[in-house]
Amino acid sequence: MAEPAKNLKNSKTAITPTREENFPEWYQNVIKAADMAENAPVRGCMIIKPYGFSVWENIQRHFDKMIKAEEVQNAYFPLLIPMSYIAKEADHIDGFAKECAIVTHHRLAKNDKGELGPDPASVLTEPLIIRPTSETIIGESMHNWVQSYRDLPLKLNQWCNVMRWEMRPRIFLRTSEFLWQEGHNAFATAEEADQDARRMLEVYRDFIENYLAVPVIPGSKTPDERFPGAIETYTVEAFMQDGKALQSATSHNLGQTFARSSDIKYLDRDGTQKLAWTTSWGMSTRTIGGLIMTHGDDDGMIMPPRVAPHQVVILPFINNDADKAGILEFCDKVQKELRAKDITVQVDKSEARSSDKMWAAIKRGVPVRLEIGAREISEGQLTLTRRDLGKDGKVKIGVNEVAAKIAEALDAMQKDMLEKARARMNGMVKDVKTLKEVRDFFAAEQTGGLKLDYSLIQNSAEFAAIKGEFAVTTRCLPFADDGKKVIVSKAY
Amino acid sequence: MAEPAKNLKNSKTAITPTREENFPEWYQNVIKAADMAENAPVRGCMIIKPYGFSVWENIQRHFDKMIKAEEVQNAYFPLLIPMSYIAKEADHIDGFAKECAIVTHHRLAKNDKGELGPDPASVLTEPLIIRPTSETIIGESMHNWVQSYRDLPLKLNQWCNVMRWEMRPRIFLRTSEFLWQEGHNAFATAEEADQDARRMLEVYRDFIENYLAVPVIPGSKTPDERFPGAIETYTVEAFMQDGKALQSATSHNLGQTFARSSDIKYLDRDGTQKLAWTTSWGMSTRTIGGLIMTHGDDDGMIMPPRVAPHQVVILPFINNDADKAGILEFCDKVQKELRAKDITVQVDKSEARSSDKMWAAIKRGVPVRLEIGAREISEGQLTLTRRDLGKDGKVKIGVNEVAAKIAEALDAMQKDMLEKARARMNGMVKDVKTLKEVRDFFAAEQTGGLKLDYSLIQNSAEFAAIKGEFAVTTRCLPFADDGKKVIVSKAY
Repeated sequence: MAEPAKNLKNSKTAITPTREENFPEWYQNVIKAADMAENAPVRGCMIIKPYGFSVWENIQRHFDKMIKAEEVQNAYFPLLIPMSYIAKEADHIDGFAKECAIVTHHRLAKNDKGELGPDPASVLTEPLIIRPTSETIIGESMHNWVQSYRDLPLKLNQWCNVMRWEMRPRIFLRTSEFLWQEGHNAFATAEEADQDARRMLEVYRDFIENYLAVPVIPGSKTPDERFPGAIETYTVEAFMQDGKALQSATSHNLGQTFARSSDIKYLDRDGTQKLAWTTSWGMSTRTIGGLIMTHGDDDGMIMPPRVAPHQVVILPFINNDADKAGILEFCDKVQKELRAKDITVQVDKSEARSSDKMWAAIKRGVPVRLEIGAREISEGQLTLTRRDLGKDGKVKIGVNEVAAKIAEALDAMQKDMLEKARARMNGMVKDVKTLKEVRDFFAAEQTGGLKLDYSLIQNSAEFAAIKGEFAVTTRCLPFADDGKKVIVSKAY
Repeated sequence: MAEPAKNLKNSKTAITPTREENFPEWYQNVIKAADMAENAPVRGCMIIKPYGFSVWENIQRHFDKMIKAEEVQNAYFPLLIPMSYIAKEADHIDGFAKECAIVTHHRLAKNDKGELGPDPASVLTEPLIIRPTSETIIGESMHNWVQSYRDLPLKLNQWCNVMRWEMRPRIFLRTSEFLWQEGHNAFATAEEADQDARRMLEVYRDFIENYLAVPVIPGSKTPDERFPGAIETYTVEAFMQDGKALQSATSHNLGQTFARSSDIKYLDRDGTQKLAWTTSWGMSTRTIGGLIMTHGDDDGMIMPPRVAPHQVVILPFINNDADKAGILEFCDKVQKELRAKDITVQVDKSEARSSDKMWAAIKRGVPVRLEIGAREISEGQLTLTRRDLGKDGKVKIGVNEVAAKIAEALDAMQKDMLEKARARMNGMVKDVKTLKEVRDFFAAEQTGGLKLDYSLIQNSAEFAAIKGEFAVTTRCLPFADDGKKVIVSKAY
């Protein structure tokens, strides 16, 4: 797990290629240099390494509080879903269950030749599917648990792994197995269900903008982009630095689709049995891919302070062995002081050279670096560097104001990162008035999103042709435009 | 999800049968009455309902802090393991991989008759196994990540689901899919590995006794009871109220078994390549079963305060509609006061009758009940009831001392529950001197554990006969007896 340093002699940036040279390769190399994740030996799957997993833990911790404030309850449902459940909902199976992992046997055994394999005697009477999403199995529980209007609303969530077989996997963005949360809510009325689906989208927007510092455009999906079985899919769309969109989280108004197929009924106040209305909402480890492609630069990752594995790294600069004990002791004191203020901090005590330590911290995107050497201690002035400001990010701070100044820097950085990304996104989405402009834009290989009147693309053969020719999609009908405009772009 | 109240006319206890009448059935009914979990439609699997899952969340939250203090890093490894990985370790496959879920296809399709099934064209070239445990796949990562002595120790953990096909499933105790944490550590020397395996067992003991209030006997497993591939398995054994033992967590010194099969090598200070030494350690949702069978009584569950979903339930007793608003406002005020002191608390605002609310709280084992009605408010005296003390648990407290008195009651209850369970366990494990006493004990259908000289059972045909005849097992060689004694009992 050694961290090779940036070699300044060979390259001007810590990551090669740069974003401009080759964005997809830059993305892979940022992940590698930050030691966040790697491909697993199982095709299409990933291993989330400690530094990357810590980001997911922070996402879980903060988002879990937000959904509990919405009176959502966590629970756990089985990994394996009987094939017949999946088959219940026709749209659902077309949309999801085609490419999935199928369990057919429950025992390994050796054959006559001594070779190991699935024991033919252990074949399952009904194949089981590793959940690609859990509407069908949670629907069955809702059927059992909901009897009366008093049992509604019912708001359930699980943090779990899911599996959708991927032919072209891409780490974090598109992997056969990924981690996510899936919320499943049931209501007595259509109005409550739609309000809830919109409400949960707003919780996503709040979280993604204010914790991940990723600006998003909230809106509705066009019918062709809806979740299979949904009557409305709401989405928060982000724009990456290469101008492609990334669907960052979705919230679905499922109408009575799953209430009908799972028979989720309640006895209403008026004494009649009624079908419930359900919603579902999800956010996955894919979000970490969006985090990287929004914030990373040509020197590597930049972590928003609120989800950074550690917000501060202290770099002891030891030029003289005689100073070592004193410097490390001082670093520990500062670490303790920061921890008392709930700032997460690590002291890099490795035997690496000072410049290697610095570059490791840069590539991992640690928000604030604090350099502490003999001179700093004797002068009572430490050097604080904000990762997002490059060479301009260095300031001297007095030893007595360390915690306050760092807390300030972290707050400012969190805010600045969102604003910087928002300014960039705003510049990326252009208003256009005709389909000809749309065609010309993508034909010229320009990047970014185009916003135009939704009526222009509805039932338009020309738009269908553009979609096919340039592999672009409708991202959303922004709420801000009351559903009258649509955003079109390439997407992850 | 309605909670039927105890019907006092038909039965003297909220749970029937009682523990004495039928312990296994009592266990199932406690889980049902507390609304903790239920069987899933997939055979052998369970659904962990919100109230039960909240216990697991509390276990995760507290235990995760403890392992991070041991410098363990969380990560995530793939769910699916290639069959060839499992096949690498002969002992391992015999012990684990016999009964497992095997993925053989990656697509569903309809056949000529329109029936859905695994698409024959999607058969995998190598079957994949849903992890029964992850030594083999994490070993592969350790092989890649460990190069030098500087990379050691490496301490990894994942919180995840695993699957071992169960023929006789039992909720929480033995389910095909369960949730757990699995820690995997690698070291440079045999000594460090053994120290670590013992250290992690001590962390389990500390957690299980001080958070779950379940007393345990720490010790080594006899060779026949070791984890497949381990050179030592350390265990913490608890005794349930019916006298059967429950292995609550285990920590394995794997020696070089997996370092050898996964080729985990490091370059040592002396310039030579050496094989590493590994350990693994796990605790699962099974622990919740142990919690129930240790603490539950004939009126239902009793939650230890430190892992209770909520530590306090406030029961508004409303006899008069005119008082309702005032009482609920008062309850909210008390709730806020308690929350400010980090006490988790729920106000039961349901429309149920007062006695139904009370019995629901009893069956769920909420540690402290606080009854608030018009009289309590006017007198300035509230009634606090500790769940573990039955009728003797009621005390009057002044409105001005609510938070302090409740904090006191929760601390006392946590301590009392452990002491009560420890006294019971101590009474259950009897010293004996001969194998004849062992035979007579189990032949007389007595329950509990027997402690005797380990030398008496080593290579003993009579002991082998006793084991077979009465389905008893060796639980551990307690550390307290320096490995000279062994405990024998029936077990879950």
